Amino acid sequence: MEFFFNPRGIVVVGATPNPLKGGNALLKNILLGYRGGIYPVNPKYREIEGLTCYPSVSAIPGPADLAVVFIPAPLVPAAVEDCAAKGVRGVIIESGGFAETGPEGTRLQKALADIVARTGIRLWGPNCMGLVDVVHSRIFSFMDPRAQEEKEFIPGTVSLVVQSGMLSAIFLIDIMSHATMGVSKVCSVGNKVDVNECDILEYFLTDPDTRVIGFYLESFSDGRRFMDLCRQSDKPICVLKGGRSRKGAEATLSHTASLAGNQRIISGALRQAGVYEARDFKQMMDFCRSLALIKPSANRSSRQVAILTFSGGAGIVSTDFVEEQGLSMAELSESTRASLKKLFPEWMPVANPVDLWPALESHIGADVDVYSRSLAAVLGDPEVDAVFLHIAVGNPRIRLNLSDLAVQVCTAGKPVIVWIIGRRDDAYEFQKQALLYGIPVFTELSCAAECLAVVLGGGR
Amino acid sequence: MEFFFNPRGIVVVGATPNPLKGGNALLKNILLGYRGGIYPVNPKYREIEGLTCYPSVSAIPGPADLAVVFIPAPLVPAAVEDCAAKGVRGVIIESGGFAETGPEGTRLQKALADIVARTGIRLWGPNCMGLVDVVHSRIFSFMDPRAQEEKEFIPGTVSLVVQSGMLSAIFLIDIMSHATMGVSKVCSVGNKVDVNECDILEYFLTDPDTRVIGFYLESFSDGRRFMDLCRQSDKPICVLKGGRSRKGAEATLSHTASLAGNQRIISGALRQAGVYEARDFKQMMDFCRSLALIKPSANRSSRQVAILTFSGGAGIVSTDFVEEQGLSMAELSESTRASLKKLFPEWMPVANPVDLWPALESHIGADVDVYSRSLAAVLGDPEVDAVFLHIAVGNPRIRLNLSDLAVQVCTAGKPVIVWIIGRRDDAYEFQKQALLYGIPVFTELSCAAECLAVVLGGGR
Repeated sequence: MEFFFNPRGIVVVGATPNPLKGGNALLKNILLGYRGGIYPVNPKYREIEGLTCYPSVSAIPGPADLAVVFIPAPLVPAAVEDCAAKGVRGVIIESGGFAETGPEGTRLQKALADIVARTGIRLWGPNCMGLVDVVHSRIFSFMDPRAQEEKEFIPGTVSLVVQSGMLSAIFLIDIMSHATMGVSKVCSVGNKVDVNECDILEYFLTDPDTRVIGFYLESFSDGRRFMDLCRQSDKPICVLKGGRSRKGAEATLSHTASLAGNQRIISGALRQAGVYEARDFKQMMDFCRSLALIKPSANRSSRQVAILTFSGGAGIVSTDFVEEQGLSMAELSESTRASLKKLFPEWMPVANPVDLWPALESHIGADVDVYSRSLAAVLGDPEVDAVFLHIAVGNPRIRLNLSDLAVQVCTAGKPVIVWIIGRRDDAYEFQKQALLYGIPVFTELSCAAECLAVVLGGGR
Repeated sequence: MEFFFNPRGIVVVGATPNPLKGGNALLKNILLGYRGGIYPVNPKYREIEGLTCYPSVSAIPGPADLAVVFIPAPLVPAAVEDCAAKGVRGVIIESGGFAETGPEGTRLQKALADIVARTGIRLWGPNCMGLVDVVHSRIFSFMDPRAQEEKEFIPGTVSLVVQSGMLSAIFLIDIMSHATMGVSKVCSVGNKVDVNECDILEYFLTDPDTRVIGFYLESFSDGRRFMDLCRQSDKPICVLKGGRSRKGAEATLSHTASLAGNQRIISGALRQAGVYEARDFKQMMDFCRSLALIKPSANRSSRQVAILTFSGGAGIVSTDFVEEQGLSMAELSESTRASLKKLFPEWMPVANPVDLWPALESHIGADVDVYSRSLAAVLGDPEVDAVFLHIAVGNPRIRLNLSDLAVQVCTAGKPVIVWIIGRRDDAYEFQKQALLYGIPVFTELSCAAECLAVVLGGGR
């Protein structure tokens, strides 16, 4: 699989100078970050984007491990044959028009499978968006090239495998423009004529740039192998399975020509294999980014949570979520109570959830960082395994030093998940900053609580 | 209750020139939008913020219906007595330090209840943030005045009642800086010594500026009356009840001195009264803003949904959500299929979910608005009761005319809920624009699906 991710030379079959076409975006994207030989192939042109263009794969002078193909489906099998003859080891076929489109497409896809069986060439796709490696700036995909030009990608340790092509592209754009998750690789696998999610999972298990793996799948190509790989993995794995419902399963058939399978059996098998199952794209991302920042706890008895909040009401609703997620509210130790009591107005009792508002209010204008001192108190408490921290951003009267909080979180080595609410711009800045400090931040209370459960070893 | 919302003169007990104090924010906020007489009371000053300051309530020359009080709790009962003597009809007590703080506070709160019983004056609070009327720019609250100065409020038809003070303030800041919901009134009721959620609900039922009502409550002051009012209401009502869990219920006691009650009984009663129960603050807001834009359907048999998507994968996951929410996937009629077929590439079959991507791709650069024509086709289909529309914003190669879509939605009179994904700034612009056109937009698929179920008469 290495030649897909780290090829020695890339052939681009279907390259074009027309900026409205995917074949142009594809070439531009590869040019942006890939430093090896790039060989556009299109009999209509002599040069594209400043590169020599070749009439056929066989006409290319240098060696090339990988070909990326974006031409009409009926022309693809011949192009793949040419690649095999040339010694290309892997081909990413991004064109649609195969098994997802009916009998003729199915016949074409079968032709591709035959070439694989005969020549040993590896095929990725068809009907996909290829792959993006954010860490090494490699975009082997026809997605909108505006993305990478603006250099918004945040390199990170989460790698994603997405069956659907458009989704993988739009996910990337969403993730990077929201700047809430660092990404390593994104792979769109499409119809899976040869390379499937298991091949990529196996590669990711030993990929040093990947620490957490997220999947959106409409079908399992080899369920047993997938579950075996998941069981072996010491990297957290999250799966969103499309086609859970009867009608949804029907729709998978026309989309990527997949059979969705029985949802109850799949969910049970995933749970047994230690996989976190998500119900939604956003939840899948939320799980992944939490697990990328916080190594999940193996000890299921260590699930005592302290809630620090700026609002009694938010503390109550969070307590409900903590209990519903199967976590427990920590009984704060005597010394923690004593430390908090010093910050609190006299009338205020110390309890968990810890409502900081009266303490914050009584220290407005004073040189006391209530947030920092309270967090220190609960993180130092042996009865507390994790902290659910609520922050209302953008109130200039409240002291809040994020770097100081981050140092404490890092030193304590206990999971801390933050829920923020407040002015949109302030919240966004806080989220970006917190990501750099390795603290997961959520703007929705229920999401934050679910991710807290996940890093505390629940949710699977 | 009218004198709380529309008073003839306001006394501000505890006004101060110190900009770090709530008593200053309170006065500034009232000054921003209220055009009647404003009378600061504080024996230490002769003038505050350009207004004559009075040493006591009795010293005020003009008439005043309403007093807003923000002074230490032990001084509050005497101030309220003064107000009653002066002929003030309602007092909003924003100070904390009452029943939520232990025996001494409980005694003070009892003293307030006694004054109510004896004089007939109406008391709102204590331990609350008062009220905000966005439509008439009235802020009778000590919340951060930066909010209104920046004129970010979007007047609308959703009115909220929030037991917790801090929450109501931060909600408002969050809502207006995200610009996703138009707000009419926000009321923070705190300890509810006299005025409670029922009084406000009753007022809202006939308030012409309120069309949807959302509650965050930790307790019901008079459950029977609340349920009766909900049953009578032809305005949709959403409730988030804090303290559902055992530990959460315990926490309500220290927060607003409330008994949370039995959750299962409460949920059943709410459902019978036709109330939408939310699990989260954000979900409560999402329900409210959907119901503000789309009148919920009374006909439970009209729940046939068409999904229009840019991504087969998103279509599949949405189909799962539609089925899980108890809605149905519409069987598209022959004429709809024929209209869509004209837009689709030849190989692409027409199905619901309607995957528009191949059609969009094949019309790139052409003068055909695939989104608009597809939406027209499904909205015109008698088999379709509602449309779940997916949009990937920020792709310059895809034509998308929001005003044209809005006209169609308005003309058809069928619920349309939009899920968007894409570049953060583009998504935000789209959301703001869509709100003006009356179309609810969500960035999370599951939230969008839940709100679709709510406007189609489900979820309660």
